Amino acid sequence: MNNRAVQVNRLPEPGPLAADTFTIVEQPLPPLNDGDLLMRVIYLSIDAGSRGQLDDRGDYVIKTAPGQVMSGSGAVGQVLESRHPRWKAGDYLATTVSRWSSVVRLKGDTPLLTRIDPKVAPLEAYLGILGMVGFTAWVGMTNIARASAKDCVLVSAAAGATGSAAGQFAKASGARVIGIAGGSAKCQWVEQELGFDQCIDYKSEDIAAAIAKHCPTGIDVYYDNVGGTIQQAAFDAMNTHGRLVLCGMVGQYSGEGEAPGPNLMAAIIKRLTLTGFLANDHIALFPEFQAIALDLYQQGKLKHQATVTKGIENIHEAINSLTSGKNTGKQLCQIGEVD
Amino acid sequence: MNNRAVQVNRLPEPGPLAADTFTIVEQPLPPLNDGDLLMRVIYLSIDAGSRGQLDDRGDYVIKTAPGQVMSGSGAVGQVLESRHPRWKAGDYLATTVSRWSSVVRLKGDTPLLTRIDPKVAPLEAYLGILGMVGFTAWVGMTNIARASAKDCVLVSAAAGATGSAAGQFAKASGARVIGIAGGSAKCQWVEQELGFDQCIDYKSEDIAAAIAKHCPTGIDVYYDNVGGTIQQAAFDAMNTHGRLVLCGMVGQYSGEGEAPGPNLMAAIIKRLTLTGFLANDHIALFPEFQAIALDLYQQGKLKHQATVTKGIENIHEAINSLTSGKNTGKQLCQIGEVD
Repeated sequence: MNNRAVQVNRLPEPGPLAADTFTIVEQPLPPLNDGDLLMRVIYLSIDAGSRGQLDDRGDYVIKTAPGQVMSGSGAVGQVLESRHPRWKAGDYLATTVSRWSSVVRLKGDTPLLTRIDPKVAPLEAYLGILGMVGFTAWVGMTNIARASAKDCVLVSAAAGATGSAAGQFAKASGARVIGIAGGSAKCQWVEQELGFDQCIDYKSEDIAAAIAKHCPTGIDVYYDNVGGTIQQAAFDAMNTHGRLVLCGMVGQYSGEGEAPGPNLMAAIIKRLTLTGFLANDHIALFPEFQAIALDLYQQGKLKHQATVTKGIENIHEAINSLTSGKNTGKQLCQIGEVD
Repeated sequence: MNNRAVQVNRLPEPGPLAADTFTIVEQPLPPLNDGDLLMRVIYLSIDAGSRGQLDDRGDYVIKTAPGQVMSGSGAVGQVLESRHPRWKAGDYLATTVSRWSSVVRLKGDTPLLTRIDPKVAPLEAYLGILGMVGFTAWVGMTNIARASAKDCVLVSAAAGATGSAAGQFAKASGARVIGIAGGSAKCQWVEQELGFDQCIDYKSEDIAAAIAKHCPTGIDVYYDNVGGTIQQAAFDAMNTHGRLVLCGMVGQYSGEGEAPGPNLMAAIIKRLTLTGFLANDHIALFPEFQAIALDLYQQGKLKHQATVTKGIENIHEAINSLTSGKNTGKQLCQIGEVD
C-alpha cells in the first residue's frame, strides 16, 4: 500500500484553482515507531485557510510552497495499525491537524486526537459541527459575543459550515437568529432544517431592507463570515452596545484584494465591540465544547450537513467549491472509503 | 443682574461656524427654589459633541434646534446664592452638565456636582484632566484597553484634551507611550511637558514610518481620537491581540461626510478588539476616577493645559478652534471672571 499525497505544483493566480495547482504524488508509508499510529484518511476538512495557504498575505495560515505537501485543519479516518496502547486497528478517530495524504502517521497522544463513534453521528459531522468548525462557531457566539435569549443575532454565510453552526448555537441559547445566505435553496435549508427564525437571500433581496424587516429592533450580535457589503449592512443595523464577532471574510480569500471597511464612527456612537478571533487561541476550551456539542447533537438541537467532493485528485475543486460559495454546510474532500 | 444665554440662531453648513450661528439672548435669572443653587459660570467645556449638536447625524448627542439654548458637558463656576445646605455663596464647583448661560440653576444634589478647590488645581483643570475629559481618557485607557507596563500605546490627537490625558494615564500605568499631533510645537509640549516617550508630527512625518520607528515591536493599544488615515496607519501597525479604543473621530464632526474605515480582515488575522465607548455609560466610576486623578495630579504625574477662548459672544470661535485642531489641551470658553 502506497501513500498518495497532495503536493503544491505551482502557486495560483487570483481566482479559482486550476487542476495543475496540485500534483498527487506517491510516497512510501511512513515507518511506525513506538507510540505512533497510522490512520487511513477518509475525509479531509477544506477550509477558507486552505486557499489562504497558497496566497502571499498576512500570517493567517502557514504558507505552503511548491514542492511541499499541503496540510489542513482536520481529518477523520480509521486506524490501520497502532503502536500506542490507546488505539487499535479499526478505531475511528478525528484529528484537528492533518497532512493531506491518504495515510498519515500520528502520535497516539496527539492533543485533541479524539475517538469518534459513527453510530452517534456520521463521520462527516466530526469535521463539521462536532469538530473545529463547530468549535469556532461556539467560541465566537458563546464566549465572545455571549449571545443570549435577549438578543437578535445575525449570521452571514448562514449555510456555510461555521455560519450554520454559529446560528444553531445562538438558537440553543434562546436568541432570535436571522441568517444571510445565497439562493432560495440554501435559505430554505437554513430556515427549515436548521431552525433559524429567518434567512435572507442576498442574491434576490435588498439586504438592508430585509435586515430592517426581520430585526425591527436592530441587531445585537453579528457573526461575520464574509466581510464586504454584507458586513457594512450589518454594521449599519447594529444596536447600541452591539457585538460584532469577526470570524472570516471568505470573499477575500481568493487573492483579489481588500475593499475598505465600515467607517468606525458608528462604533463610538453605538458603543460597539468588534472582536476578531481565531479558534486556536481558545483551544483549551475544546474538550468543554465537545461535551456540550455532542449533548446538543444527541438532543436533536444541532444538525449537520456537508458538501463532499470525492477523490484526492479533485481536491482543488473542493477548495473552489468553498471559495465560490457552492457548498452547503461543511466542505469536505473524501479521499478514502467509508468501510 | 441678567442672564446671558447662547441660543442657536441657524443650523450651520459643513465647515467652521459663522458668527451668526448663535445669538446671545438676555433672560431673567431663574427663580431659586428650596434645594436649588444659582451658579455663575466661569468656564464652559467645549467638546467635539458641541459641533455635533448642530449636525443632523446619529444619536451621539442631543440635537439643538434654532431658538433653543445650547447645553454642554460641563462647567465650573461659583455659587451666587444657595437654598441647599451643602452649598453656600462663594463655593467653587464643577458640574458635568450645563446650560450655556452666564448663570445656571442647579439642584444642590445633582449627581456629580463636585466641590472644587482652586488652591489644589486651577479651575480650568476641573474641566480637563480632572473632569469628564480626564474621565473619558481614564475609562478608555484603564478600563477598556487595560494598558499596562507591557504595552506600547499609541494615542492620536495627543495634544488634545482627551489624548493628552489618555497618554498620561498610560504613562502612569508604566506603558511606553507614543503620541501623534500636528506641528512641532504641539509635539514638543507632548514630549517635554506631558512626558510621552515620543510624539509624531503628522504634518511633517510619514506616519507609518514614524510608527514603525518608535514602536518597532508594534502597537498593543491604540487610543483613537481622530479616525481617517491615522486610524488606518495605526490599524496596520497593531500587534496580535491588540486593543483599539475608539473614543472620537474629530475630523468627522464638521459634517463633511464619512471616509471608509479599515478593512477588518486584519482584525481576524491579528485577533484585534475594537471598542467604541462613551464615557457616560461608565459614569458610576466617576467618583473612583476623581480620587485617583486628584491623587496623581498632586503627585505631579498629571499635567493640565487649556486653550481658553474669552467671551460668550466668541463661543462659535471656541468650537472652531477645537474642530480645526488649533487647541492645545482642553478647549474652554471663559464667560465669567475668575474672582
